[in-house]
Amino acid sequence: MTTLSDLNTCEPGVFVEALRGIYEHSSWIAGRAAGLRPFASLAALKQALQATVTQATQDERLALLRAHPELAGKAAIAGELTAESSGEQAASGLNRCSPEEYALLHDLNARYNEKFGFPFILAVKGPTGRGLTRAAIIATFGRRLQNTRADEMREALRQVHRIAEIRLNELLTVQHRFGPQVMDWAETLGGISDSADNLTCAYMTPAHRRAANQLRDWMREAGMDAHIDAAGNVVGRYAATRPDARTLMTGSHYDTVRNGGKYDGRLGILLPIALVRHLNGRGERLPFHLEVVGFAEEEGVRFRSTFLGSSAITGRFDPALLEQQDSDGLSMRTALHAAGHDPAQIGALARDPASLLGFVEVHIEQGPVLLERGLPVGVVTAIAGSSRYLVELTGVASHAGTTPMGMRRDAAAAAAEIVLLVEGRCSRRGSLVGTVGQLEVPGGSVNVIPGQCRLSLDIRAAGDAERLAAVDDILAGISAICARRGIQEKLWKLVEANAAPCAPRLMDRLGTAIEAAGLPRFDLLSGAGHDAMEMAAITDVAMLFTRCGNGGISHNPLETMTADDAEVAGEVLLGFLRSLE
Amino acid sequence: MTTLSDLNTCEPGVFVEALRGIYEHSSWIAGRAAGLRPFASLAALKQALQATVTQATQDERLALLRAHPELAGKAAIAGELTAESSGEQAASGLNRCSPEEYALLHDLNARYNEKFGFPFILAVKGPTGRGLTRAAIIATFGRRLQNTRADEMREALRQVHRIAEIRLNELLTVQHRFGPQVMDWAETLGGISDSADNLTCAYMTPAHRRAANQLRDWMREAGMDAHIDAAGNVVGRYAATRPDARTLMTGSHYDTVRNGGKYDGRLGILLPIALVRHLNGRGERLPFHLEVVGFAEEEGVRFRSTFLGSSAITGRFDPALLEQQDSDGLSMRTALHAAGHDPAQIGALARDPASLLGFVEVHIEQGPVLLERGLPVGVVTAIAGSSRYLVELTGVASHAGTTPMGMRRDAAAAAAEIVLLVEGRCSRRGSLVGTVGQLEVPGGSVNVIPGQCRLSLDIRAAGDAERLAAVDDILAGISAICARRGIQEKLWKLVEANAAPCAPRLMDRLGTAIEAAGLPRFDLLSGAGHDAMEMAAITDVAMLFTRCGNGGISHNPLETMTADDAEVAGEVLLGFLRSLE
Repeated sequence: MTTLSDLNTCEPGVFVEALRGIYEHSSWIAGRAAGLRPFASLAALKQALQATVTQATQDERLALLRAHPELAGKAAIAGELTAESSGEQAASGLNRCSPEEYALLHDLNARYNEKFGFPFILAVKGPTGRGLTRAAIIATFGRRLQNTRADEMREALRQVHRIAEIRLNELLTVQHRFGPQVMDWAETLGGISDSADNLTCAYMTPAHRRAANQLRDWMREAGMDAHIDAAGNVVGRYAATRPDARTLMTGSHYDTVRNGGKYDGRLGILLPIALVRHLNGRGERLPFHLEVVGFAEEEGVRFRSTFLGSSAITGRFDPALLEQQDSDGLSMRTALHAAGHDPAQIGALARDPASLLGFVEVHIEQGPVLLERGLPVGVVTAIAGSSRYLVELTGVASHAGTTPMGMRRDAAAAAAEIVLLVEGRCSRRGSLVGTVGQLEVPGGSVNVIPGQCRLSLDIRAAGDAERLAAVDDILAGISAICARRGIQEKLWKLVEANAAPCAPRLMDRLGTAIEAAGLPRFDLLSGAGHDAMEMAAITDVAMLFTRCGNGGISHNPLETMTADDAEVAGEVLLGFLRSLE
Repeated sequence: MTTLSDLNTCEPGVFVEALRGIYEHSSWIAGRAAGLRPFASLAALKQALQATVTQATQDERLALLRAHPELAGKAAIAGELTAESSGEQAASGLNRCSPEEYALLHDLNARYNEKFGFPFILAVKGPTGRGLTRAAIIATFGRRLQNTRADEMREALRQVHRIAEIRLNELLTVQHRFGPQVMDWAETLGGISDSADNLTCAYMTPAHRRAANQLRDWMREAGMDAHIDAAGNVVGRYAATRPDARTLMTGSHYDTVRNGGKYDGRLGILLPIALVRHLNGRGERLPFHLEVVGFAEEEGVRFRSTFLGSSAITGRFDPALLEQQDSDGLSMRTALHAAGHDPAQIGALARDPASLLGFVEVHIEQGPVLLERGLPVGVVTAIAGSSRYLVELTGVASHAGTTPMGMRRDAAAAAAEIVLLVEGRCSRRGSLVGTVGQLEVPGGSVNVIPGQCRLSLDIRAAGDAERLAAVDDILAGISAICARRGIQEKLWKLVEANAAPCAPRLMDRLGTAIEAAGLPRFDLLSGAGHDAMEMAAITDVAMLFTRCGNGGISHNPLETMTADDAEVAGEVLLGFLRSLE
C-alpha cells in the first residue's frame, strides 16, 4: 500500500514509477511534479499535477489527450488498453455494448475525432467513482460534440485530471469520510420529486414534505435533535456542552426549481449532517451549538416569492404572503395547513441575533469560475446586489423592402445597440455582470421592420455603488440610443436588491481551513442570491462554494459535482468549525 | 370663377389676394410663389407653393403651423375661425361634438401643444375631400401624439399642404375625372371582406369571389369585354380598332393581406377601369388592345405561394401548387372547384409574348419616399431582388449572476452584433436595404444568459450584384461574429429572387407623361415585390408609384392616399397610353 508520505519521501524515479498510469502514457507529468514535493495533502498533489499540465506546452497537452484510447474503440476491442483504462471501461459496461451501441459509439468517435483531432475522453467512473451508465456516457458524448474546440480541449483536460484523481484515490486507497455519503444522500433526496420525469421539489408539495421528513430522519440518525418548524424548515441541533453557548447556524434550501439539479441547496444541508455524524461518532462536541437548517423555500417557484424559509428564521417573513396563490389558485396559507403547519406560529421562529455566532452556507457555485481555475472550493466575498428591468421599445413597423435605411425607426436595431451597451459597460472590470436574457420582437415577420421590441436587463455587482453606476450609465445610454433613433422607451423596474457582503472574520477562517487542506484560498463573488443573503439581516454570514461540473451549469439536471470535491468541502467546513470559539 | 390662366397672368398682388386663405394667415407663401409663374398645371402650382414652404426658414414654418386654430378649440367655439377653417371643421361635424368629445379633444389639444409647441393640424376633409368622421379625427390625433417632434412637424406641414390643396381645388372649381371615382370604388371593394372587423380578401374565399364579380361588372360598365378566368383573374379587354393590334396589359392584384389596406393592388385595377370609362365615353380607341387585369392572388396569404394570378398569365403557374393546402387542410384544387373554376384550364391562360406590347402597373408605394419628397407619383426603376434567411444561433444558457462576462457564450449578444452588422452594411449607399424582422430568444428568462437566439435576414437591392455582395459580406460577418463568441450558427435560405428591371423605353414614356402634367419626374426602386415582377418574365414592364400617406404605412388599415394623387396618376397613365403606338 502506497501512502502520501511514501510519495513525498521517495527518490524522484520511484515517484514517477509509482504514478505511472495515473496520466495515460504521460509520465512526464509526474516527472515534473516530483520536484515540487513534499505535498501537504492528496489535494495538494492533485493540484500540482494539474498545474504541471496547465504549464506545459499546447503540443504536450494535445499529446496527453491523444495518448488516451477511444471509448469502446478498436484498442478496447483488441484488448490493447492499459490496465487502468481497461478496468474503467469495463466497469461502465462499455465492454458489454450492444451492436447498435457499438455502431453509435463508433460513429461518435469518428465525428469527434474529425472535429477536434483528439479522442473523446470521459472519466467513465463519474462523479462518485462508481461508474456512469452507458446511456449517460453516450448522452455526454453527443453533448460535448457540440462544443467549440477550445472549450472541448479544456473539458477533455478536466476529464483527464478527474481520471487521474480517481486513479490516485485507488493508488493511495483513500477512505473518504464525507463525500460519498453526501453524494448518496443527494441521490436519494433527488429521487423524491413532484414530477415523474425530473427533479422538482416546490414548497409544501407532497414531495417537499417527504424530503423534509427524510432530512429530519438523517439529522436524527447523525445525532441531532431535529424537527420541522412551522415554515417547513428542517432544523437539527447539535448542542454544545455548555447550554448557554451561542449558536452557529449552517444550512441551505431543500426546495428546487422545476427540472432542477441534485446539489443546488441540498449540498449545504447534507454536508453539515455528514460532519455532525462524524463528530458525534467521535464523541466530539463544539464550543457552540451547531444548528443545521434545511430551509424550506428559496427558489420562489410555487408562490413567486423567494427566501420563505430563511425569512421565517430572520423574522422578516411577511404574513401577507400567506394569501399569495399558486397557479392552481391555492393560497400559501391553505398549503401550509394542508401540510399540518400552523402559519400563525411562523412569527415565533425569528431568532435572537444576540444568540448567534454567525451563519455559514456551503453551496455549489452554479457557475464556471472554480471549474475553469481547477479548484474544488472557493470563499465567497459577497452576494451580488442586483437590478432588474423590463424595457419596451416602440419604433415604427414598416415594409422591409420599401423603407429606405435612413427613414427607419427599427425597434430591434435599438435593442441590438442596448444589448451591446450592456455587455460593453459590464465587461470593463470588477465584479459587474450584465445580461439581456429576454429579447423579442413580438409577432415579427421576415419582411417587416420591427415596430416593437422587448428586452430585460439584469445587472449585478459585489458593490452597490458599482452596480448603481452601471445601471445609471445603461439607462442613460438607452435614452440616448432611443432619442437618436426616434424610438420610444418604457422601463419597468422589477428588482433593486443591495449586495450582502460576507464577514471578513468568517471568510478568513474558511480561507485558513482551505489552506490547511493543502489548497490555495480563492475568493469569488456569488452572482446568484442565496439564503445567506437573507441571514445577513440578523448575523454575520460566510459562504463556501464548491466546483460545479459540466461547464458550471445549474438549475438543470446536468448540474454535477464530485464526491472528491464534497470531501474537500467537508474537510474545510470541519476545519472552519473547529477554528471557531 | 378663378382659372389657372387668371392666376398665371394677373398682377402679383392680385395673385396673393386670390390665394389669401389657402395657407392660413400666411400670404407670404403666395407672395414668394408669385414670382415662379406661369404654372403649367394646378399640380405645378401646388408643388411651387409647397417648395416655397420647404425653402422657408424653420421659424417661418413654425409660424405657419402656429397660425392654425385648434380643432374644436376656443377659437372654433368663439366663432373666431377663418371662413375656410370654420367650414372645414363644421363639415366634419366638429361643431357638433358631444361634451365628452369636446373634453377629449381639449385634453388632446393640451397634450399635443405641450409636446410639440404648435397646434394639431389635420386636413379634416380627408383623402377624398368629403370629410373625416369625428372618430377618425380623434384616433389620428392620438396616434400622432406618439410621433417625435421632427416627424410630427413634417406631418403637420404635409397636412397644411393637403388643406391648401383642397382649398385650391375649391377656388378653381376643379372637376376631377378619375380620382374620386377610384376612391369610391376602392371604398366599395374594401367593404367586401372575409372578416367582419377588417379588410381581408384571400384567394378563392367568398369575399374574393364577390370582389371578382364586382370588378368584372365595373369593367363591363366602363365599356370592356370582361370575364373571370380559370385562375380567378378578372380580365377586361378594351379592343383596338384593328383586330391584329398588339396588346398592352395593365393591372394589379385584388387579393389583400389579412387586415390590409384598400389601395394596395386595387388602385392598379380601378384606375385603368376609370380611364377606359373616360376613353369609351369619348369614343376614343387606342392603337393597341388594352387589357386590364385584376390578378387574383399576389400576397401569398392562403396557400403561402405568391403571384398565383400573374403566373397563370405568364404560363409559369406550377400545377403542383394545386395540392397545396390552406390552414384548414383544404387544397387549392378543391377551393378552385368550389368557386366554379376548372384548374385544368389554368395552363391555357398563358399569353404569347409576341402579342404583347408590355405591362404597366400602377401601385401605391407602400413606403415613405414620395411622401417625404412631397411628390404624388414616381417612376419605378426596378423591383428589387431579395435574399431571405433564417438564422439560429446557439451559445450556452447559463446563470446571469454567476457567469463572468468573459466566460459567456451569449447567443443574443451575437444576434445583436448581427442586427447592427446588417444595418451598417446596408446603409452604405445605393438601393440596398437590410432588415432583421424576426428576433427572439426562445423561452428567455431575465436571469439566464441566452443559450439560443433566432433571427431573420431580408436583404434587397435594385442590382443583383449589389445584393449578393452584401449577402456575402453579411454571412461572412455572421461567421466571424459566431467564431469569436463561440456560438454555433445554422442558416436556412428562404428566398433568393433576382431583381426585375423596368424597361427604360416604358419608364421614359411614364416620365414624359409626368412632366406633361407639370410635375418633376422622380425615379425610385420598388423594394416590395409586385405582379410586374412576374410579368417581366414574358414582356417589358413599367410601374408608376403613387404617394402613400400616414408615413408610408401599408399592409395595414391605416394605408391611405388622396383622390388628388389618384387623379394625377390617372392623368399620367392616360398620357402614357396615348404616347404608345
